Amino acid sequence: MAHPGGHLSITALIGVPEVSPGDNLAGIVAGIAPRFERGDIVVVSSKVVSKAEGREVRDRDRADVVADETVEVVAQRGELTIARTRHGLVLAAAGVDSSNVASGSLLPLPLDPDESARRIRAGLQTTRDVTLGVVISDTAGRPWRVGQTDIAIGVAGVTPVVDHSGTLDRHGNLLHVTAPAVADEIAAAAELVMPKAGGTPFALVRGLGHLVTDDDGPGAVAIVRPVAEDLFRHGSFDE
Amino acid sequence: MAHPGGHLSITALIGVPEVSPGDNLAGIVAGIAPRFERGDIVVVSSKVVSKAEGREVRDRDRADVVADETVEVVAQRGELTIARTRHGLVLAAAGVDSSNVASGSLLPLPLDPDESARRIRAGLQTTRDVTLGVVISDTAGRPWRVGQTDIAIGVAGVTPVVDHSGTLDRHGNLLHVTAPAVADEIAAAAELVMPKAGGTPFALVRGLGHLVTDDDGPGAVAIVRPVAEDLFRHGSFDE
Repeated sequence: MAHPGGHLSITALIGVPEVSPGDNLAGIVAGIAPRFERGDIVVVSSKVVSKAEGREVRDRDRADVVADETVEVVAQRGELTIARTRHGLVLAAAGVDSSNVASGSLLPLPLDPDESARRIRAGLQTTRDVTLGVVISDTAGRPWRVGQTDIAIGVAGVTPVVDHSGTLDRHGNLLHVTAPAVADEIAAAAELVMPKAGGTPFALVRGLGHLVTDDDGPGAVAIVRPVAEDLFRHGSFDE
Repeated sequence: MAHPGGHLSITALIGVPEVSPGDNLAGIVAGIAPRFERGDIVVVSSKVVSKAEGREVRDRDRADVVADETVEVVAQRGELTIARTRHGLVLAAAGVDSSNVASGSLLPLPLDPDESARRIRAGLQTTRDVTLGVVISDTAGRPWRVGQTDIAIGVAGVTPVVDHSGTLDRHGNLLHVTAPAVADEIAAAAELVMPKAGGTPFALVRGLGHLVTDDDGPGAVAIVRPVAEDLFRHGSFDE
């Protein structure tokens, strides 16, 4: 992978209106982004995608909504459920969010975040006539580590994982298992300018044009480890 | 947490000489960084810290070196061992690296990366007379997800985790504890400008001065989840 710049910038896009069901997110971003350059990446919080896609639910029991989103319970302690979603994501409460929504409302993840990313990308590229990437981010906890980082749950036009296997380092050693999950790193980086209090669901990442592709690419599903390869399934721990 | 800028930039520091045991990393960074502003964060690859601290070993069996670094084997499949290190990190091969070192050499992690970060910070602040943060990064795989992201294994002068939990209590929801692990996100963001082929072990992150503290703070040990709180220990999976 070329490393053209060695420099990137991330800017929160301000002036976002409250997002409602049916809103065109590409139109909203195009309305507030000053200008785009070829190879820019727009990071979009999954929350506004879910809102625009009408996923918000009201007056339903939280446990029921979480159960609807759950394919498999991965871990549980007290009221905390870590669940695998239909997307293959492993998230607290199966990704169902109750922050930054009206009281009594719950916000599940978008049904198909890669498709959402492709749609936003297509809208932006048509409006602005420039090749861009789109990453839809969500917040995920991690085993063994405190707190959360943002990850990429939807990707269009961005290489999700850079596979260095087969390439050599400067000493001639094979980088056989090195595969940076750059889409996750982009989501994490953008979180640093997108405060949790809400109101800043879009960020513009500039300087990573070498990761932006003409086609939409495999999407964030390529970052989901197949269950058969998962060392951390029940019973696969070394005991 | 204030959100002053909504903008950050990350720049790889170029012109790094090959690092040897005994080298003063603060001096090397000060020699190649154009200038610093208050609140800049310098990200340093753990690899050069280990090299400078003389951790490189030669002509030893890899399995023996990994065993020396291992406190507990967390998962194993074939030749791949995921192990908890003395630092509480859970890493492939207990963090022992065989890339970007001379053939036949192995590079374990620094003995105390928080102390390393504090020492680099002190050296830089003395030389440049400005308040900075330092993050030492390493590459970590993740359960359930393909590829790796960089995480913070040493931190000085940077808030490692921002705890928003108090602001979300109005939902009455014990499950929703928002605490961005910003030091990990900074490490991940910097990886995007630090290519795996080597030669760029330092990056300068600007725009996150609100996360930079006058004192060294708790360090990266604050991001290590206590084993007693770990949902993913043996037997704690829901079965």
